Parts: sequence; structure tokens; C-alpha cells
Amino acid sequence: MASIKPANARGTRDFLPIETAKRQYIFGVMRNVFTKYGFSEIETPAMEQLTTLTGKYGDEGDKLLFKILDNGDFLSKIEETVLLEKNSNKLISQIAEKGLRYDLTVPLARYVAQHQNELTFPFKRFHIAPVWRADRPQKGRYREFYQCDCDIVGSNSLLYEVELIQIYDEVLTKLGLQAEILINNRKILQGLVEHFELHNHFVAVTVIVDKWDKIGENGVRNELQALINNESKTNTIIEILQINNVEQIGKILSSNTTAQKGVEEIQYIFEKLKHTHIQSNVIFDLKLARGLNYYTGAIMEVKAQNTDMGSIGGAGRYDNLTETFGLKNMSGVGCSFGAERIFDIMEAKQLFPTNLNNSATQCLFVHFDEASELYCFKALQLLRSREICAEIYPEKAKLAKQMKYADDKKIPYVIIAGENELQSNSFTLKNMQSGEQSSVSLYEIIQILK
Amino acid sequence: MASIKPANARGTRDFLPIETAKRQYIFGVMRNVFTKYGFSEIETPAMEQLTTLTGKYGDEGDKLLFKILDNGDFLSKIEETVLLEKNSNKLISQIAEKGLRYDLTVPLARYVAQHQNELTFPFKRFHIAPVWRADRPQKGRYREFYQCDCDIVGSNSLLYEVELIQIYDEVLTKLGLQAEILINNRKILQGLVEHFELHNHFVAVTVIVDKWDKIGENGVRNELQALINNESKTNTIIEILQINNVEQIGKILSSNTTAQKGVEEIQYIFEKLKHTHIQSNVIFDLKLARGLNYYTGAIMEVKAQNTDMGSIGGAGRYDNLTETFGLKNMSGVGCSFGAERIFDIMEAKQLFPTNLNNSATQCLFVHFDEASELYCFKALQLLRSREICAEIYPEKAKLAKQMKYADDKKIPYVIIAGENELQSNSFTLKNMQSGEQSSVSLYEIIQILK
Repeated sequence: MASIKPANARGTRDFLPIETAKRQYIFGVMRNVFTKYGFSEIETPAMEQLTTLTGKYGDEGDKLLFKILDNGDFLSKIEETVLLEKNSNKLISQIAEKGLRYDLTVPLARYVAQHQNELTFPFKRFHIAPVWRADRPQKGRYREFYQCDCDIVGSNSLLYEVELIQIYDEVLTKLGLQAEILINNRKILQGLVEHFELHNHFVAVTVIVDKWDKIGENGVRNELQALINNESKTNTIIEILQINNVEQIGKILSSNTTAQKGVEEIQYIFEKLKHTHIQSNVIFDLKLARGLNYYTGAIMEVKAQNTDMGSIGGAGRYDNLTETFGLKNMSGVGCSFGAERIFDIMEAKQLFPTNLNNSATQCLFVHFDEASELYCFKALQLLRSREICAEIYPEKAKLAKQMKYADDKKIPYVIIAGENELQSNSFTLKNMQSGEQSSVSLYEIIQILK
Repeated sequence: MASIKPANARGTRDFLPIETAKRQYIFGVMRNVFTKYGFSEIETPAMEQLTTLTGKYGDEGDKLLFKILDNGDFLSKIEETVLLEKNSNKLISQIAEKGLRYDLTVPLARYVAQHQNELTFPFKRFHIAPVWRADRPQKGRYREFYQCDCDIVGSNSLLYEVELIQIYDEVLTKLGLQAEILINNRKILQGLVEHFELHNHFVAVTVIVDKWDKIGENGVRNELQALINNESKTNTIIEILQINNVEQIGKILSSNTTAQKGVEEIQYIFEKLKHTHIQSNVIFDLKLARGLNYYTGAIMEVKAQNTDMGSIGGAGRYDNLTETFGLKNMSGVGCSFGAERIFDIMEAKQLFPTNLNNSATQCLFVHFDEASELYCFKALQLLRSREICAEIYPEKAKLAKQMKYADDKKIPYVIIAGENELQSNSFTLKNMQSGEQSSVSLYEIIQILK
């Protein structure tokens, strides 16, 4: 067979043992915190029907969905005239029924609608799993990446917004990161737009404001002016957007009930936060808009302080997401962690516990002939029966080769059994870090390694 | 927006919280045992290049690969004459570069070849992840399902075959299952075929023998006779295949060196197993052939005793798997657990720990007005800071509704704070199972729940 150059599909990655251990460490911290706050883990499939996914992420999102080709003779049912049109978009719907999930939120909405009679509401779930997007790959952006989501569906209570802030705070603090949490409310943005009689421009305005980080104040000003063609309104809006005092915003938009509702919600959240012990900075920021149009209330974005890395998490309330699947009046609120960026920051700042290793093996048995191999093999059984992570070198090999294996795997102890050890029914235990060696019994080895 | 009936793609499933908890329990037991034996976890992407996957699983396997449509205007580059041929198979290679992995073994071979300079050999890795096959869905057979694989690449040592048997034994014993492990060696089958001068028929013969469980002795006899057209040879082979004494097989095939090698390997494994404490039955079975053609040495199949469920695991040695990716002389051996079937058996036999629940929440705070909500909210902070899984009911609601939430989520304790409790700075703690109630301080609650 001709040999193939081994390579990943574009925009996807493998993880080495040490990287996997670090990723599992991050997921483990999240899992513990989510669980402590009363969230249960669920799973949904990677593959969804395209009817479930399409139309939920805007036109741009639809283009980024990975579609799965129908199996079998998919062309047989297609008419020649359709083929000759060479319209890829049109053909997709006839040759691809399924796609890979784009996020975990739309599958959650489908899940809640589908299993509504089997769930307890308010339904608190978390889900840690890969999602797929056909984005152009670049540094820090992959086509397959993990999302770590925590959502509550079926309650309007703002206590959940508070809880999500606490979860961000606790997870990131436990990982060694200092977080900055920006918070806003789409109702205030809605009120602002209404206040300036730009009702029809709400989506367009939020899309422009959402770019503030990228294009800056002047960029937003230019785009806004191009949209509404009113310099005075444009300038006033730009000015208001930069006010970071929510009470002041409340006064400016006092005539708009939607904005008032949003201001009250923000105030409630800050009030409740006073009774918690969070260490993160929570900052009201009216410039925060969040791209996703399904948000209807509080929205949040999380950054790690002292890094130039962008957002490591986003959250928000959505009132109508399950409605698409036939289930009305199910307000939800959820937060998402960007595991890949958190990993990169922790790596750069060396925040992973030093005991994370590419293997958990505590000791390696080293031997020299058939007799010592059997002697070690029997001892190995006993260590493992005491739940000690242990290995035996699998072949007859020179001592140096066996020691190198222990070294490469960063195994802390090597247990050597030569002729002398067999005669005295003992072992030589070598501490690989200090180089110290001692003659010990199997019982003593268990005491040391346990 | 018109509403869509919520449904899964065919052959895929959602998991409810309690199901997810049970699945995570199975994965957790495996993860612990794999780790104890010195295996490290890795991850590879769900998406692979089709050139990596195609041709590794036979023609039937190629048909079952899920192919991912290239993004963008995939038709633009296709010539009209090609389209009008309406040859689906031919078109696939021009419109789909990627596919979903079919198992975890071929991605492992690619991974080892690709990262050979970053790994320690013998490389012991495990991987627990979903795979996808476009099989016709039926009871117990899904299009997206988990494989739990443990492999060692880069050593010929038969100690690893022994280790895999021990891993099967330990995982299944810890899950409460009694296992039966059938073992054979492809070298003996190879020698058997050579012994009867049927060298060219090796693959065909193994494919027929592999069907023994399905079509029985007579079915195998008929197919074999149809293949080799020699009744006497057919009858003798059928007879030999049913001999379950490996020494006897060794004598019958004593003139064939390949068979001898296979017999010695089996004998070595049984000899070493005497020094272990496994509880499973390990049985030599020459009728075991395993469908996958990459196996070259020991092969195994695992069943749970006292069930009519088929195989719950398969294992084998492969000498040339990484060669496809340009890396020669890398013998590997691995075992796989069928998590879905293990789940079904454990469910039927009620083997899951009774403390597995659809949530880990230990207590729910119940309140009646703004004052008691705040009182509970503050207490909640303290419990969580002590790592106690706790929730507060998020809304003002009738007591019955709040209690129902605790009941539905099977939360063991409810903490009630009414006017009296606030006045005496205490709480009423209710044990939901016994119905018992007592007036306690927050400190006492922590003692009880910790």
C-alpha cells in the first residue's frame, strides 16, 4: 500500500498526553463548579438535522455549518436540470440532511422542547463538548473546538444571572485567572434605539456597536452615521454608549419603559452581588452588544485581566429560543467558557498545577532476565491491587533503555530487581528526581507510594 | 418563525441527566483503570481527511463513512460531464475532502506516525470518544456511539496482551459484570490455512469463520465448501476449528512454523495469567476470527456472562497499521470496550450505584418573601464556599411548588426559612426521604451535609 503523509484535516488538532491532561484539568474544575451550583450534565449528538441548525445563526452562520453528505447513491434522486444549474446552495438541501452542531445552545433548545416532559424546570444543565465551524483557520481559531456551557431554562429569575457571574468568578479564580466581567442588558440598547426613534434599526445598530472593540469609536461613529444619516443623533448615541454609570443611563432614558426594565435588572444584579464574595471586577458597559440576536435581556462578556487575549466567555438571556421548536414561554439564560483561549492563557502564565504529567504512573519495574521479570510481574500485581499506578518495562532491554522510558514519561520512582534483590526478597527503589536509592521491601514500597 | 418538530437525526440520541451520570460513571471506572495501568489519555479530532480513513475498513466500511461536504461553492469546480454521469461515488472525492472517524484505531495510527518524535515508546494511550457509522439504525445500534480504547504501540511484548486481559477483567468486575474472554491468534488461523494449502484464501476463510456465531457450524461448512470445493478438507477444518485445547492444535499443525508461533504466544499468555488474580473466564477459541483484517497476532472477544447481549469488547494485535502512514516496524495491540452495550446490560441488571442521581444537589433553600430570600441567599454562599452542592429556589413561589422541585430532582434535604427562622437566626432542615424536620443552625447544616 502506498503510504499517506499523516496530517490533520485543516483547522483541527491532536492533543498529546500532557495537553490532554491539562485540558481535562480545566474541564474538571468547570464540572465541579457547575455541579456545586446544581447543574446536571447532559449530552446531545454531534450530528443534528440541518432543519434544526439552519437559520439560527444568521446567513454568515449558515455558511459556516459543516454539512454531512447523505449516504448511498445521493445523486440518483437529483434531476439533471438541477445539476446543470450548478447552484451549490440549492443542491445542498437535496444531498445533505444532517450537519455538525455549531454551538451547544440551539441543540439545547431542541433538547428542552423534545424532552420537556422528562425534565425538571427550571432546568439547569451543563454541557462540555466540541462544536464545528467552517471558519478560516488562524492562530487561536479552529474548526473543531470545545464549548463549556451552563444554562438554565424555564425561569425569569435574575438570581440566575447572579449565579452565572459567580460561576465565572469561581471557575476562573480556581484556574488562577483574575476575571473582568462586562455586563449590559439588551433592553437598555433596545430602549436607546427607541428613544432616538430608530426602531427599525435595532439589529443593525447592535451589529455596529458590537464591533467597538475592533473598529473603535470612530469606526462605530462612521458606520452609525452611514446607517441613520443624522450627525447629531449619531454623536449623542456615541456619547451615551460610553457612560458607565447605569443610574445616569436610567435618567437619560427615563421616558422609555424597556430601557427602565433593563436598568432595573442591572441594578438588581449588582445589589445581589454585594452579598457574595466574588473576586472578579464586574463592570457595566453599554457598548457591549453581543452578536447573537437571540439575546433579549442581560448580556455578559468575560476577559482575563493582564492578557491581550480577547473574550474567554460570553453569556446572556434569551426569551424565545425554544419557541422555534414549538415550546413557548421558556426564558433561558446561559454562559459559555472558551476552553481553548483559557488553555492558551494558562499555558502562557504557567498556571497549570506542576504535578500534571503526561502519565500518572508512579513507578516502573525494571528487570534483567526471565526470573527478575516474573519477580517484578508478581509485585506489580500487588501494587495495582492497592490502586497504585504502576508499570513494568515490557521487554528485556538494557538498563539504560528502561531508565530512559521512566525518564521520558517522568515516572517519579523506578523499582529495580536484580539477582541480589531476588535473593534477599527485596527491591531497590530509586527516586528519579533526587537520584537517591534504597533497598526496600514490597510493603515499604506500598507505604511510600500510597 | 414557523416551528420545527424537535427531533434527533436518525440513529443518534440525547442523554438525560441521569443517563449522562450513569455513562460518566462507566467512563470514570475505565479512566481510573486505564490510568492505573500506565495509559495516558489523548484526543484526536472527530473530522479526519478522507484519505486517512478510506480503504482501511474494507469496501463495506468505506460505504459507512460519513463524508462532510466541502464548504463554499463546491459545484463550481466540477465539470458538467462529470455531473451528468450521476456517479455518486466518483463525485464524492471531488466535493468531500473530510469525513467523520469510523473508529479510534486508524486515527491512532495516523497520530503515532505524525507525532512519533513527541511520544514515548512503547506508547500507551487511551481514548474515550464518539465514532460515527452510517449503519442502518436498529435496537442497540446507533450511528453515533462511544468507543473506549486502550492501545500500546511500539512493542512486540506479549505482556501487553496479558495486561489488556487484566484491564478487561478489572473494568468489568468493578462495573459488577462477570466477563468471558475468548482468545485466539491469527497466526494459528494463518497456519491452518497454509497447512491445507489454501494460502490464497486466508482472508476469505477468516471472513467465513468469523460468521460462526451467526450462521452456525453448517452455515460455515457450506460457505467453506463453496469456496474451496473440497469436502474432505472442509470437514477436517470444521473439526479442527472446534478443538479448544491449544496444545492439541499445536500437535496437529506441528509442521507449520506460523501456527507454532501462534500456539506459543497463546501458551505464554495463559502461563502469565496464572500469576494474576483475574476473575474472568479466559477461553481459547479457534473459531474466533475477528472481521478486521489488520489483526496479525492475538485476537480477543469479550462477552458478559448470563446475558444474551453479544460482544461487549474486542481486542487484537496489529503489526502494520502505522505503515500506511509511513512508519514501519511499529507493532501495536489494543482493546476496545462497547460502552453502549455495557450500559444496557448494567441497566437491565440494575448494577449502577444507587447514589447516582439526575443532580448532585444536596440541599435546596426554600423561602417565602424578599427577606427570607436574602437570608437564604447569604446562607447559600457559605454552604457553597464549603464545597457543598446547594441551590436556592429562584422565584417567589408556593411552598408546594418549591418542594416539588426538590422532589423531582431527588434533592435529599430542603432548608426552609420562614419568619420564625429569621427571628431565631436558624433554619428548618427537612430530610426529604424520612420526612423528619429539625430546627438547626447554619453551622449544624454544614456538619450534616459535609
